[in-house]
Amino acid sequence: MSELRQNLATREWVIIATERASKPMDFANPAAKAPVAEREANCPFCPVHEAITGPELFAVRPEGGRPDTPSWRLRVVPNKFPALTPSPTCAILPQRLKEGPYLRMDGCGHHEVIVEHPRHDQTLAGMTVEEVRLILESYWHRHHQLASDCNNHLMTIFRNYGEKAGASLRHPHSQLITTGIVPLHIRTRLYEAQRYFDDVGTCAYCDILRHEMKSKERLILENDGYAVFAPYASGTPYEMWVMPKRHRASFGDLPQEELGAWAEALQGALARLAKLLNDPDYNYVLQTSPYPLAAVPFYHWHLVIIPHLKTKRAGFEIGSGISINIVSPEAAARALRETL
Amino acid sequence: MSELRQNLATREWVIIATERASKPMDFANPAAKAPVAEREANCPFCPVHEAITGPELFAVRPEGGRPDTPSWRLRVVPNKFPALTPSPTCAILPQRLKEGPYLRMDGCGHHEVIVEHPRHDQTLAGMTVEEVRLILESYWHRHHQLASDCNNHLMTIFRNYGEKAGASLRHPHSQLITTGIVPLHIRTRLYEAQRYFDDVGTCAYCDILRHEMKSKERLILENDGYAVFAPYASGTPYEMWVMPKRHRASFGDLPQEELGAWAEALQGALARLAKLLNDPDYNYVLQTSPYPLAAVPFYHWHLVIIPHLKTKRAGFEIGSGISINIVSPEAAARALRETL
Repeated sequence: MSELRQNLATREWVIIATERASKPMDFANPAAKAPVAEREANCPFCPVHEAITGPELFAVRPEGGRPDTPSWRLRVVPNKFPALTPSPTCAILPQRLKEGPYLRMDGCGHHEVIVEHPRHDQTLAGMTVEEVRLILESYWHRHHQLASDCNNHLMTIFRNYGEKAGASLRHPHSQLITTGIVPLHIRTRLYEAQRYFDDVGTCAYCDILRHEMKSKERLILENDGYAVFAPYASGTPYEMWVMPKRHRASFGDLPQEELGAWAEALQGALARLAKLLNDPDYNYVLQTSPYPLAAVPFYHWHLVIIPHLKTKRAGFEIGSGISINIVSPEAAARALRETL
Repeated sequence: MSELRQNLATREWVIIATERASKPMDFANPAAKAPVAEREANCPFCPVHEAITGPELFAVRPEGGRPDTPSWRLRVVPNKFPALTPSPTCAILPQRLKEGPYLRMDGCGHHEVIVEHPRHDQTLAGMTVEEVRLILESYWHRHHQLASDCNNHLMTIFRNYGEKAGASLRHPHSQLITTGIVPLHIRTRLYEAQRYFDDVGTCAYCDILRHEMKSKERLILENDGYAVFAPYASGTPYEMWVMPKRHRASFGDLPQEELGAWAEALQGALARLAKLLNDPDYNYVLQTSPYPLAAVPFYHWHLVIIPHLKTKRAGFEIGSGISINIVSPEAAARALRETL
């Protein structure tokens, strides 16, 4: 018989139905990604093509050099096909407009691409920890730099890796979008975490972390500042959370010197995933508090990795919001832990 | 510039970013599904294979005949790989168990397959209205029949059509799952609809329906009892809602004689979708109230059709819950309305 498990922080139930379950290799990516060259003539993110993207918003150039020239290690540029665009009027007053009984707003916000590496064929799992640290540092800088725009209430940072994860370009990149609203999805999670805090007196995420580090059943790896584990109520096979040990609602409050340990944990998690399941597609998402709630005691920033394996989000998941997961988080964690 | 639109009933915002948008044919299914035979030797749902499925739970046999023999027009059978399974102990007391700080439950519930037609190669878009009515009637019967199990708090009825929608078998079928919990996803929607009712004094869904029937901008088709429209805050291209004109929270309260008009509306919507976009994969989900809330004035059952086209739910959607839709609902409705 399957079982239902509740996420302690969000109160969402998932179904763990492992009757059909199987070895990690049954979930492995069937075919390796086609090899690509170090440079790609048509790639807008490759060096020497800097003029194709909009003017860079941030860059790492250890040897110096002018903006929008090839001497970079990392660049942040505007998304060419933005979901939202910055506008001076929005920053003053993000106005709700009526359309019949409905509300609408202009699509104000920032939508940026973090070009993570000059090499077209690089992957995050294959980078050095220092290269990954530069990426996380760029997230951190953009989070700070965009804080002054009073219409930015929430920054969502995410990475789509591979076609199944929604990536249209192979060149290593992640994205960020700032919104002037805190969506229902996040508001509900904040509310549930606050309820937990009111009932129990502690941060639900701190309690999860403490339990996972003690039981070790779902723990994948750990260093001084971070733990990586398969959450008890994983909604998808091989889901991982990379969680800072120190309680902070917003990742923007992270001291810069703690970025290295985060990079080490994230790189380790992705390298294990790539090795165990033959470089599968995945999304990762940074879950952090809205800007104005950076100091709350009940929320705790973390990064969620969702691999795209054989299973699909279908009608039941869409209709009920309940995920069906056919790999137990304990088995997933064991396999990932024993990899490398 | 894109725009944000709010779903009046759920308060969820979506981004409508049509800058890249394009003609319906850009979204059409690139290749028609491979043709299949009327009968398939390995299909567990084809006639003469009745013994492969579990014993039937419901069937339509206009010419009579014994259960689990070939003379059926429609059969409901247990799912061979159930996410949840019925259990007599659960019906008495669905017990929450502690596992460290977490809650878990046995996976109790019903998971059934509605085998919609004897022909392996039939599609819902290609069936007669009477054949579709039989399917909806079987949903209705199972909703009533399973109401007596006190552990069934919610029935989710859904259809996965095509591989991208998560279907593993081609034979026309839909599924139902009953759960002993009302998940956060549904609870939040009920709460938001109840808030609307408290603030405005009317059902948000009734107000949406009234506006859509009056403005006609997003209306696709209409008959005596039902309207089909593209919702104002569609999260995906060519999303459609099939909504009963008469307010009822639970579709179980529908009088049987209103099933025919529902079948006509649903079949019309799916036939247009198949014709306009070359038979794309889709999910549909019946959104209905939990059993104990059948009489509430603030909820309104309806059926949601989500086509699987070129776009993917990626990191931003996973992290923020905000959908990015690159086809305006007005353009989608116009194209669907003008089809056939």
